[in-house]
Amino acid sequence: MTATPDADPFARVRDSFDRQAFMRTLDARLTQVGAGRCEAVMPIQPAFGQQHGFLHGAVVTALSDSAAGHAALSLMPPGASVLAIEYKQNFFAPATGDRLIARAEVVRAGKTVSVVTAHAFTVTNGVEKPVALLVATMMTMRDAA
Amino acid sequence: MTATPDADPFARVRDSFDRQAFMRTLDARLTQVGAGRCEAVMPIQPAFGQQHGFLHGAVVTALSDSAAGHAALSLMPPGASVLAIEYKQNFFAPATGDRLIARAEVVRAGKTVSVVTAHAFTVTNGVEKPVALLVATMMTMRDAA
Amino acid sequence: MTATPDADPFARVRDSFDRQAFMRTLDARLTQVGAGRCEAVMPIQPAFGQQHGFLHGAVVTALSDSAAGHAALSLMPPGASVLAIEYKQNFFAPATGDRLIARAEVVRAGKTVSVVTAHAFTVTNGVEKPVALLVATMMTMRDAA
Amino acid sequence: MTATPDADPFARVRDSFDRQAFMRTLDARLTQVGAGRCEAVMPIQPAFGQQHGFLHGAVVTALSDSAAGHAALSLMPPGASVLAIEYKQNFFAPATGDRLIARAEVVRAGKTVSVVTAHAFTVTNGVEKPVALLVATMMTMRDAA
Repeated sequence: MTATPDADPFARVRDSFDRQAFMRTLDARLTQVGAGRCEAVMPIQPAFGQQHGFLHGAVVTALSDSAAGHAALSLMPPGASVLAIEYKQNFFAPATGDRLIARAEVVRAGKTVSVVTAHAFTVTNGVEKPVALLVATMMTMRDAA
Repeated sequence: MTATPDADPFARVRDSFDRQAFMRTLDARLTQVGAGRCEAVMPIQPAFGQQHGFLHGAVVTALSDSAAGHAALSLMPPGASVLAIEYKQNFFAPATGDRLIARAEVVRAGKTVSVVTAHAFTVTNGVEKPVALLVATMMTMRDAA
Repeated sequence: MTATPDADPFARVRDSFDRQAFMRTLDARLTQVGAGRCEAVMPIQPAFGQQHGFLHGAVVTALSDSAAGHAALSLMPPGASVLAIEYKQNFFAPATGDRLIARAEVVRAGKTVSVVTAHAFTVTNGVEKPVALLVATMMTMRDAA
Repeated sequence: MTATPDADPFARVRDSFDRQAFMRTLDARLTQVGAGRCEAVMPIQPAFGQQHGFLHGAVVTALSDSAAGHAALSLMPPGASVLAIEYKQNFFAPATGDRLIARAEVVRAGKTVSVVTAHAFTVTNGVEKPVALLVATMMTMRDAA
């Protein structure tokens, strides 16, 4: 008896996320996956700080982009892979605290081009605070290895 | 005889760049600074890769954003610090090779808000290839510590 | 007995929207205003088309930006005015049909900088279709005339 | 003797620009076309103003986007048409004066996706002033009518 594809319809999304060396370096994990949705979490660590000691904005972008790309991938056909064409990131507040969470949602799934938002939150002593919003344009790459 | 402030008018720009723990983690260095201009360079290392083995897009953003922010800082009054309000990143090609370079230039320096572009290039066997363009909106923070 | 300020807490938002000559040229109206929210509507007319006969993308942006700016203004202190520092517009589908609607919502209201999203929809025979998403960075201008 | 296609290699770019009803409404003209470059100009007219009497930001975007799209089109194969997937617009200063100019340049021409910048300037008594920067992602649509 082998696992059927239905056992975890999002296994390839999890696999792709976990293949990202940078996510492992950040100790980031994919905590939720659904159709068109992903949540990823990472601890806030000093090695990834900026000049004032807060988490570097591009690390907020890294988690947000990875969540967004994999939210898009969850809706793509088997064998496809996802490529970020571009994104825009707005920052609301410095990222500090215990953990960073990115919650991504596909706003528009096209055959070739998808648009995804990712909201980022810090968690400090169990309290969430919104810190950033990313909007990304993702491309479906077919016949990917 | 001691060095005067004029010895290096951009010392505070270099200091700010080097205070970024994430830039040290990436082994990134500020290689040039001028009025409204910065160049930063980092080696392309496997620990910062994405799911296909290329450098993660957000690492391209990290170097580009840091170069852009410090290009803006180079034009700000003494005591000010720089804050990225938002940025947009376009990707042209996967980042692979030996090194990544980001060259930033202030397009518009305002009293409060500045706009900066950063072009990113990979270098492979001495050959540069453009891989990304960032446009960032930077805010001048006065009375900073 | 005179009208109190509470009679229409958003009168200045409506006034500002209606002072926009371009909105009058487009025959655009503000159809709803709330705290941090605006809806604006305009007919889709041939004079504002692009090369394939659809509504020009920048007209979608015009309605979206105006809704977004006035959503931000609804949360600003009396006497303040709103200035768009920058925006990003994603297009999902060509805009065609009877009417265009833009629904804007403030995502983050800061003292100086606010972030607002605006979703645009076309209406054809009473059926709404999402066509675009705008994310805008708005600045609070104090002491405005 | 008839005109050869070489007589004006950019005739289809000019034709496409001029087919935009909104550009005619704005009285906008394409003043220069080259490989990967376009310049467009329009008078600044009260009918397209915002709430403070300046030219509406989305009109700056309209001219910039049209110049950018047609700069991209100039590099596309015969029969292709251009579609804006998304753009980002930064504003530097209110647009006021006699004329608005948008100068667009392709930064990266891909088979499917191109990235184009457009700088906008106002002209007042013959003096140019930079007012905005647009970065757009354009898609090549093949087999277009």
